[in-house]
Amino acid sequence: MRNIDEFSITQAVLGSLEGCKDARLKEVLAALVRHLHDFAREVRLTEAELMQGIDFLTAVGQKCDDKRQEFVLLSDTLGLSMLTVALNHARPAGATQATVFGPFHVEDAPRMEQGDDIAGGAPGEPLDVDVCVCALDGTPIPDAEVDVWQADEQGLYDVQIPALGQQRRARAVMRTDAEGRLRFRSIVPTAYPIPTDGPVGRMLVATGRHPWRPAHVHFMVKAPGYQTLITHVFRDADPYLDSDVVFGVRDSLVARFDKKEVQGARRLDFRFVMAPRES
Amino acid sequence: MRNIDEFSITQAVLGSLEGCKDARLKEVLAALVRHLHDFAREVRLTEAELMQGIDFLTAVGQKCDDKRQEFVLLSDTLGLSMLTVALNHARPAGATQATVFGPFHVEDAPRMEQGDDIAGGAPGEPLDVDVCVCALDGTPIPDAEVDVWQADEQGLYDVQIPALGQQRRARAVMRTDAEGRLRFRSIVPTAYPIPTDGPVGRMLVATGRHPWRPAHVHFMVKAPGYQTLITHVFRDADPYLDSDVVFGVRDSLVARFDKKEVQGARRLDFRFVMAPRES
Repeated sequence: MRNIDEFSITQAVLGSLEGCKDARLKEVLAALVRHLHDFAREVRLTEAELMQGIDFLTAVGQKCDDKRQEFVLLSDTLGLSMLTVALNHARPAGATQATVFGPFHVEDAPRMEQGDDIAGGAPGEPLDVDVCVCALDGTPIPDAEVDVWQADEQGLYDVQIPALGQQRRARAVMRTDAEGRLRFRSIVPTAYPIPTDGPVGRMLVATGRHPWRPAHVHFMVKAPGYQTLITHVFRDADPYLDSDVVFGVRDSLVARFDKKEVQGARRLDFRFVMAPRES
Repeated sequence: MRNIDEFSITQAVLGSLEGCKDARLKEVLAALVRHLHDFAREVRLTEAELMQGIDFLTAVGQKCDDKRQEFVLLSDTLGLSMLTVALNHARPAGATQATVFGPFHVEDAPRMEQGDDIAGGAPGEPLDVDVCVCALDGTPIPDAEVDVWQADEQGLYDVQIPALGQQRRARAVMRTDAEGRLRFRSIVPTAYPIPTDGPVGRMLVATGRHPWRPAHVHFMVKAPGYQTLITHVFRDADPYLDSDVVFGVRDSLVARFDKKEVQGARRLDFRFVMAPRES
């Protein structure tokens, strides 16, 4: 502890955590310190760079308020959020994969019925959605709760449009029928940029990255006895599928939004295969 | 990029940095992403823990203002600041070692002369300081600038006492004489806790760590042709020498603050050995 150099410092910090009574906190913090120090040694971090990093993190914290969580954006854009999803939602072969939750879910989405139009006036090309929810062996899961939310053709969620106030649109909570099926009408979602008017936006510019997410519809599916599935269905042929700024795309979650021959609406079919709850 | 799992995600994020034109930024961010992902995989970070981490960092950012830098405290208490000092101030054998700069230096410290009392009314036991500044071969360095700052017997720096306003005390900028020597009077510093009323303080409590720094006097020594030396002299026998909350102690920086036989004052002698400037 009195002979600090670039190597012994790490042992000194780990030693200071010896008295931590919360075993998990101790494990997580000790690992964080080891990796943080390894990082600084590897790049030979300068004092000016440390201060730049401190200024950046300070700006990220100060951009946060009750409507904006810039540290979530930072975690998303560094792949940490999607990595955490991957670590915690390993699913058996054949089960639909999970992806990031995102910041646009609300608790008070309207309850709707089979066949309803959930768009609620949101602008966009009509889309007929026909999904089914089933078990790994193909057995349909009736009465599963399906929570849907999405952006409109401007790439905006209702909660991003101040003029809408508490009005909800392009989102709903519904249930599958006796055959595990759910049909509803909505609109075709559009690709959109994550908010770029803060420090994370400046980081994207500085690193030559674009801020776009490929078009997608969010689904959260719940059924007793099954793991809750939080995922997206992505629109195929979207130009950002191979460069999603939050790294959320999985091949199995990309689907066609087909143009139907008649009626002018597009159509999306998707099958959600639920993993059994771990006992 | 479409087949994200807990391993491929790291390559996907590194790939997204390929277009970064600032080579150093790319190097630092890529290393940060690798180590951050390794950390999350090693501890199998849960989504709840990620959110706890995000909430913590948000609170750290929101504690910062023009007088308080909580991210510096976080960097200090995780040993990152001292590691960065060690990485950037490797010194030849025999040269005085550097330690953390700390947040209490000011640019407008009063200029004082040999023999002055720099305490300026700060409470504390009188201390006569007698230092010399020399080169590696022992040659004295005349006219070196010596910037001194310290806490009082309450463990407080002048800038922490609102009632003092812009008044400066227990700090001064002086110069060595023709023999490289500088004598002045001050007070004996006291150990003090770093600020604990924020998230870093809560982290210390949660991990069973105390917030104390052992008693010390700060010195910044500048002379043409030599590397600027930023360091402390620590008081020996301080109970926190082996558990400094910011990991700043080095054995070579610990000195006796001897009680003199007469006069009642204590006395500190120290020799600063300057490293030549790298050309």
